[in-house]
Amino acid sequence: MDIRQATDADFAQIWPIFRQIVAAGTTYAIDPDTDRAGARRIWMDAPRETWVAVEDGVVLGTYYIKANNAGGGAHVCNCGYMVASDAQGRGIARMMCEQSQVRAVELGFRAMQFNFVLASNVGAVGLWRKLGFEEVGRLPEAFDHPELGYVDALVMFKRLG
Amino acid sequence: MDIRQATDADFAQIWPIFRQIVAAGTTYAIDPDTDRAGARRIWMDAPRETWVAVEDGVVLGTYYIKANNAGGGAHVCNCGYMVASDAQGRGIARMMCEQSQVRAVELGFRAMQFNFVLASNVGAVGLWRKLGFEEVGRLPEAFDHPELGYVDALVMFKRLG
Repeated sequence: MDIRQATDADFAQIWPIFRQIVAAGTTYAIDPDTDRAGARRIWMDAPRETWVAVEDGVVLGTYYIKANNAGGGAHVCNCGYMVASDAQGRGIARMMCEQSQVRAVELGFRAMQFNFVLASNVGAVGLWRKLGFEEVGRLPEAFDHPELGYVDALVMFKRLG
Repeated sequence: MDIRQATDADFAQIWPIFRQIVAAGTTYAIDPDTDRAGARRIWMDAPRETWVAVEDGVVLGTYYIKANNAGGGAHVCNCGYMVASDAQGRGIARMMCEQSQVRAVELGFRAMQFNFVLASNVGAVGLWRKLGFEEVGRLPEAFDHPELGYVDALVMFKRLG
């Protein structure tokens, strides 16, 4: 397993992962109908960097890193992670998150913030807690989940370095 | 005093307000060097709507409204408010915030979220509390203030309608 910066060519493998996760509408506050060009803007163009977790040439996971705000808020980064459905349970999200924290420090960031972790996404919440992220905010009923109805979203934060 | 939707022509008066507030770097997490084109993108193009508070043809204040997230998060809106320095203390921010809540409900939003209210901006924090916003999050040292150093930013939230 290699975690390396994504190339333009990797987007062909990132897109089906993005599409499946976003279309489900259960974890990311992104329009479920986002098309390929929109996905490229969100995941490849807007972020500072995009990375992939690759095994034998197959992209199993991907993350982006970007400043969460500009100006006086530019020292806090934000990341998003996605793992292919058939690669779940192998610790890929954990590996990517750990690597992204190292990369964040290299890029000069002092903290990492997740703006919108669904309280219903107990796997993600538990993993981020294990990795040292604290719940610093709770947005009441901020997400309309297709099966669960309105659920809270958490803001999670970790100082780095 | 009239609060109405901004036209393209209003941007000529919005820009100096935006420039002064953003260049100070003490309240908004926006690049202090943002140029006129960047300001237009941030304040006029990206939001769903932009409004102005006008008296005798003079723009004294402005706000934007937009969805804070897409997909399952699209029922929560976000607003930003700016008041011209020589119009401070006249209750214009309060009037704009009250009007924006009415407009938010008209647009179908169920809640309003401020993502990044500096704890050092005691006037704003106090006003938003008075208007029914609750502190639902605190981002530790998330803003590098030019005079105060690192200060916390608050996430504030209000259910509407």
